[in-house]
Amino acid sequence: MATAGKVIKCQAAVAWEQNKPLVMEEIEVAPPQANEIRIKVVATGVCHSDLYHLFEGKQKAGFPCVLGHEGAGIVESVGSGVTNFKPGDKVIPLFVSQCGQCRFCKSPKTNQCEKGWASERFTAMSSSDTRLTSPLNKVCLLGCGVATGYGAAINTAKVEPGSTCAVFGLGAVGLAAVMGCKNAGAKRIIAVDINPAKYEKAKVFGATEFVNPKDHDKPISQVLHEMTDGGVDFSLECVGNVAVMRSALESCVKGWGVSVLVGWTDLDDFSARPIQLISGRTWKGSLFGGFKSKDSVPQLVNDYLQKKVKLDEFITHNMTLAQVNSAIDLMKTGGCIRTILSVSPE
Amino acid sequence: MATAGKVIKCQAAVAWEQNKPLVMEEIEVAPPQANEIRIKVVATGVCHSDLYHLFEGKQKAGFPCVLGHEGAGIVESVGSGVTNFKPGDKVIPLFVSQCGQCRFCKSPKTNQCEKGWASERFTAMSSSDTRLTSPLNKVCLLGCGVATGYGAAINTAKVEPGSTCAVFGLGAVGLAAVMGCKNAGAKRIIAVDINPAKYEKAKVFGATEFVNPKDHDKPISQVLHEMTDGGVDFSLECVGNVAVMRSALESCVKGWGVSVLVGWTDLDDFSARPIQLISGRTWKGSLFGGFKSKDSVPQLVNDYLQKKVKLDEFITHNMTLAQVNSAIDLMKTGGCIRTILSVSPE
Ligand SMILES: NC(=O)c1ccc[n+]([C@@H]2O[C@H](COP(=O)([O-])OP(=O)(O)OC[C@H]3O[C@@H](n4cnc5c(N)ncnc54)[C@H](O)[C@@H]3O)[C@@H](O)[C@H]2O)c1
Ligand SMILES: NC(=O)c1ccc[n+]([C@@H]2O[C@H](COP(=O)([O-])OP(=O)(O)OC[C@H]3O[C@@H](n4cnc5c(N)ncnc54)[C@H](O)[C@@H]3O)[C@@H](O)[C@H]2O)c1
Ligand SMILES: [Zn+2]
Ligand SMILES: [Zn+2]
Ligand SMILES: [Zn+2]
Ligand SMILES: [Zn+2]
Repeated sequence: MATAGKVIKCQAAVAWEQNKPLVMEEIEVAPPQANEIRIKVVATGVCHSDLYHLFEGKQKAGFPCVLGHEGAGIVESVGSGVTNFKPGDKVIPLFVSQCGQCRFCKSPKTNQCEKGWASERFTAMSSSDTRLTSPLNKVCLLGCGVATGYGAAINTAKVEPGSTCAVFGLGAVGLAAVMGCKNAGAKRIIAVDINPAKYEKAKVFGATEFVNPKDHDKPISQVLHEMTDGGVDFSLECVGNVAVMRSALESCVKGWGVSVLVGWTDLDDFSARPIQLISGRTWKGSLFGGFKSKDSVPQLVNDYLQKKVKLDEFITHNMTLAQVNSAIDLMKTGGCIRTILSVSPE
Repeated sequence: MATAGKVIKCQAAVAWEQNKPLVMEEIEVAPPQANEIRIKVVATGVCHSDLYHLFEGKQKAGFPCVLGHEGAGIVESVGSGVTNFKPGDKVIPLFVSQCGQCRFCKSPKTNQCEKGWASERFTAMSSSDTRLTSPLNKVCLLGCGVATGYGAAINTAKVEPGSTCAVFGLGAVGLAAVMGCKNAGAKRIIAVDINPAKYEKAKVFGATEFVNPKDHDKPISQVLHEMTDGGVDFSLECVGNVAVMRSALESCVKGWGVSVLVGWTDLDDFSARPIQLISGRTWKGSLFGGFKSKDSVPQLVNDYLQKKVKLDEFITHNMTLAQVNSAIDLMKTGGCIRTILSVSPE
């Protein structure tokens, strides 16, 4: 492209400090250095992790920044040494690395590359299958929320056919977890959220029952124990709240119950009584759904195109980048599942 | 026997209240009722769980009581309906039930019978193989401590060949965990205890390295990360202290590290930062080493007789029941691994 090798100017929604609206600005982006790629972002979803950074987190140092880690775009130019990508490729940037060389990448047990995750720059790329039409303003959801929840159910919890599951939190991450439970063959999927407006969507993804903790005086774990004669086989926390993490563990059946942390917080420690584990429960966590990032996302794009994985149903709003502050408000007030911001034309 | 069907008189070390020495008394024991067995206890080990009840626990209601859950003995008489046992059988009473009928007993995933564990009466029995000579004053250790630690490593952690393990706490439970790691083929077994007098024994069971948290200013998890280039594959907490539980989790490698709670406490909650699990660690717990009690203990007796499982090496002291308070003091001050109390002649 004519811009290759040059500093370019772009519109960006800049987060200058915590708890402040984003400001639309023209920023300069340097050409890609060795092993880097410059991408024209076409669309991005707004994820709760963006809100966490902006409103909840303790990382006051991480500003100013440009949020948006659930994007998809087109390679504009590549730095030296890049052989796997060329200008024009459609790509989904990934926040978990997959170097392919380290002991973590070589192990089938984990997706946690030695190179780590979530730095200032994206650390991995996944090229979507260019022989097929894959709308970037949908598949961007595979760069974070949907892959995260879906994989947490199938890869981390390893939900089993005929099992009973509970999913706490019905944002895109939780709904994707519901979809994972369903695709894994769960018999009962209990959807838990304090916002009953989410239940209709949860049904679309396969939830069979709905519980609002606010409807009960007793602890939600007790409610679930009564509903399931002793607790669920699998529970997934998709909220990011340590009290909910505890409830999700306590909602599991003794002996073999598995609870997975998917929601993110570093404000507090999570905790429970030792007997919860001694009596046979397992506590796990999931980053990016346990998917090895570069290997899995192209496969997930195919699964979407073959209708094994839903994406369209997560999208409740489409807006432009300039409307980003409205999109953020919408998520804060529970008014959306995912808003897709169109950033530049495909 | 001449005593069958009658109330009998026995010597017992009675715990009248917390934090008080046990008192030797003559007590009356009623004949066994339906599905009960009356056992002449020959020997019993003193386990830290006895000390927990006596000095540390909150269950002030559980008094007066007769402690001693790591025993072995001879069936004196049986109640109506008992067909599997007859007077003269050598037995190991078990504190975890195995009814064989419930969904937990029918699942290969767990040893947590619906009938529960640790009530006032023993809930299961294991008959040791009477064709072989199995000294009751050794195999009693299979009724609690040794089965617990050994199974926690092989059944719950599922330690893998070539792996690196850390065992926190080197009482009988922790040493048995070391033995489990070794039998499972672990390459490095790091033994952690604040009492360096325990290291010699740990070597006997297969420990390859020794760490005293008191020798270090930095957190023990950091010490272990440095020793192992990123953390251990498996860690087992055999102390019963929530701070140690946290350290044991944090000592694990990201991606696939598994930490198992074996030590017992209900004084405090255990806790950690969510990222510990999100980055791929698993937190589990183990009761009686995950062994299905009735099925496994006779097998473990055989493993002992075939020298696959050590027992003699755990026994540092032999005393009589009348010396029980000295045995308790010895464990409190870290002066023993296991003291076996001989209760009546075999
Ligand atoms: N582990 C990962 O790799 C990863 C990746 C992406 C997102 N996340 C995290 O997943 C979480 C969910 O993200 P999202 O985008 O779906 O968020 P979201 O805000 O769209 O959804 C959160 C849902 O939780 C519900 N909720 C809030 N409090 C609740 C409670 N006490 N009980 C039950 N439900 C409750 C809300 O009503 C909402 O429906 C966030 O913490 C996010 O940071 C983790
Ligand atoms: N889960 C179960 O089914 C089960 C069964 C039996 C016993 N237990 C529990 O296992 C634990 C161990 O029992 P035991 O009989 O071996 O006890 P023990 O008292 O013989 O051994 C405990 C060891 O921990 C060490 N220790 C204390 N604080 C430590 C610290 N901060 N760091 C490292 N080491 C420390 C002590 O020096 C001692 O060597 C107890 O909590 C007991 O209640 C659990
Ligand atoms: Zn790697
Ligand atoms: Zn995200
Ligand atoms: Zn015990
Ligand atoms: Zn049972």
